[in-house]
Amino acid sequence: MNFCSACGATVSFRIPQGDSLPRHVCDTCGEIHYSNPKLVVGAVAEHEGKILLCRRAIEPRLGLWTLPAGFMENSETTADAAARETLEEACARIEVVDAFSMVSIPHISQVHLFYRARLPEPVFAPGEESLDVALFDEQDIPWDELAFRSVRLALEHYLADRRAGRFIFHSDDLAMEPVKSM
Amino acid sequence: MNFCSACGATVSFRIPQGDSLPRHVCDTCGEIHYSNPKLVVGAVAEHEGKILLCRRAIEPRLGLWTLPAGFMENSETTADAAARETLEEACARIEVVDAFSMVSIPHISQVHLFYRARLPEPVFAPGEESLDVALFDEQDIPWDELAFRSVRLALEHYLADRRAGRFIFHSDDLAMEPVKSM
Repeated sequence: MNFCSACGATVSFRIPQGDSLPRHVCDTCGEIHYSNPKLVVGAVAEHEGKILLCRRAIEPRLGLWTLPAGFMENSETTADAAARETLEEACARIEVVDAFSMVSIPHISQVHLFYRARLPEPVFAPGEESLDVALFDEQDIPWDELAFRSVRLALEHYLADRRAGRFIFHSDDLAMEPVKSM
Repeated sequence: MNFCSACGATVSFRIPQGDSLPRHVCDTCGEIHYSNPKLVVGAVAEHEGKILLCRRAIEPRLGLWTLPAGFMENSETTADAAARETLEEACARIEVVDAFSMVSIPHISQVHLFYRARLPEPVFAPGEESLDVALFDEQDIPWDELAFRSVRLALEHYLADRRAGRFIFHSDDLAMEPVKSM
């Protein structure tokens, strides 16, 4: 951030009075510009035991498989966001059941939240951000081609809970991935 | 938003190509400025059966009682945010247990998330944003002087679950409050 989005003057990055963290502050109009973590919301949608996955048509992780998920929008609920993202990315209408996996990823200032959901009819197709959409049996999930660690966690929790015959809420934190040595 | 925070030019509010919602778009440098819901994170901290509440020293709802809670900051986890807000508002060091109440409030584009927590020592004091901090027995909770509906929900869920002898995760949506007639 270089300029104040309210008045257009230049901003400085400093701790406002009474605050404890530096913010972008407009020295002309006084506006304080906060930046906060974003919520990414998605769904594990099941149809006759199979799980709906999308192959990404966009970066990051183009070509890899993911659960339908994306940034929550203003004026919607978390459940709305899960259903909307599934409709956008997989052209699939789901019945949202319950939030069940939440993952904090502090190094990218995101919180990922996944819902359990039912896909009543096996009707789906790639949305604009997907190359492919498919239903996977548990043994066919492409574990080595998953796009995100939060997606892996959600799938692991989902399948373990399904085997256990009960679903609980899971909360995890993900640290930065270690750089792979050559 | 009137000006591009990247280059300082004026922005227009329109649907970018490939998107479905209007955004503030810079016609000069091309930057798209997204606005997304914010996470407010707090804690129900218990010490010997009593619950820690803060009386607000700031607007909105100045003078009313609340659970320690506030906007999640970048680079922290949701549990970090609950502990930090409790330290800031109640000068109290808690042991965070589990996320247990999540509330979507779409008309203000916020998601409120409350943790269960233990307050090991009855050590607390009003932080800068609090007029008073106190531990309340269940029968003394000031239900008619609570600041926010999400706080009421978290307290109701907490006390009901405690009576039931088990805690589960709760997810609620709050619609805009009806305007009170005179």
